[in-house]
Amino acid sequence: MKVEIWSDVVCPWCYIGKRRFERALEAFPHEVEVVFRSFELDPAAPVRSGETVTASLARKYGGAERVAAMQEHVRRQAADEGLVFRLDETPHANTVDAHRLLHLALDEYGLEVQARVKEALMSAYFEDARDVSDPAVLREVATAAGLESGRIEAVLTGDEYADDVRADVAAAAAYGANGVPFFVFEGRYAVSGAQPAEVFGRALEQVWEATRPSPVTVVAGAAGDVCGPDGCA
Amino acid sequence: MKVEIWSDVVCPWCYIGKRRFERALEAFPHEVEVVFRSFELDPAAPVRSGETVTASLARKYGGAERVAAMQEHVRRQAADEGLVFRLDETPHANTVDAHRLLHLALDEYGLEVQARVKEALMSAYFEDARDVSDPAVLREVATAAGLESGRIEAVLTGDEYADDVRADVAAAAAYGANGVPFFVFEGRYAVSGAQPAEVFGRALEQVWEATRPSPVTVVAGAAGDVCGPDGCA
Repeated sequence: MKVEIWSDVVCPWCYIGKRRFERALEAFPHEVEVVFRSFELDPAAPVRSGETVTASLARKYGGAERVAAMQEHVRRQAADEGLVFRLDETPHANTVDAHRLLHLALDEYGLEVQARVKEALMSAYFEDARDVSDPAVLREVATAAGLESGRIEAVLTGDEYADDVRADVAAAAAYGANGVPFFVFEGRYAVSGAQPAEVFGRALEQVWEATRPSPVTVVAGAAGDVCGPDGCA
Repeated sequence: MKVEIWSDVVCPWCYIGKRRFERALEAFPHEVEVVFRSFELDPAAPVRSGETVTASLARKYGGAERVAAMQEHVRRQAADEGLVFRLDETPHANTVDAHRLLHLALDEYGLEVQARVKEALMSAYFEDARDVSDPAVLREVATAAGLESGRIEAVLTGDEYADDVRADVAAAAAYGANGVPFFVFEGRYAVSGAQPAEVFGRALEQVWEATRPSPVTVVAGAAGDVCGPDGCA
């Protein structure tokens, strides 16, 4: 089965949802191919701004208190998944370059390496509060995850895979996704949000049942003329 | 969309069904990949027997009259599709070699060439009453349809693709097909027999609707936590 996950590197529910989905995958007995698709929560976010998300949100929503309460809720949910989020230090960061590297990984290295890069980027951002818009950070994380430094450099200094990022964003819109994480199973069934692992588990089972080849459904009601071992009458 | 058609070269309803299906395809606006799968109506049929099907059937079912009535019915249905069947001359013929060449065509040349070989074999048999168990006939037909003579020779003098023929036959049995033609759409929906073109047309539409990616079905009932352009609350 193929599952595409639209998410952003800097989206806390995406990282939490990723862990919950992974728990469901562990309990699921069939093979699943996971592809990470790009989504930009804030395409206008700056590169290496130096500002924290907390400060940026406080400006936007008026008041650090509300932001702190929101972040506390997220932090607890993350902790339940074994993730230590450093939300008051994470920088407000553009993610288009991170997404372009994720496409490089998918295109030239395959699913496993893309998954490794995705995990490394999210961990760098949420657990180490590193600026994933900073080319130096991206270079380091992507190299450690197995990408070749010459290709990383070529992508970061050019605009390779920008089209693919845009296509992913457009595809999410076409699916009607207005937030992430957004999971699409076999191109036909969707689950929205960081659902509990049990919900992902049920979705996997349900889609598996709905899309398995056997038994076939006979479409035409009446039987047509056939030839068999006993003739064509 | 992918459609697999199980049929035998010497099966009259298969050729008639092929024409009806082709009419449905012409009216269907989306791209369809057609693959021909092997089915042997009579695996014990002889090679170059010299006996006609009519004589063989008369022996089996006792009486040329019943066979003539059966063949007249088939001949009329064929004529409605623009096919002139020479049923009283067609030889009782083994088809395993014809099927092995069809697998060679699929494997090394692709769908279009396989379709060309299939059509040429059926036409040679039903319209020209040629013996499709005869290596000389197979060589001529397959060469004219675009297969390379060295490869044809290698297949005809060895047992290449015999496994694939057996696998196709086993797959048909697994689908519960006890006669041909048998059509499987997207590996999941089946139509049995030489149905009217309208039935094939409706099946194409129905399967298209049932298997298209958009709109997606949302599996999980309640919404999960998401981050969107306006934050993660």
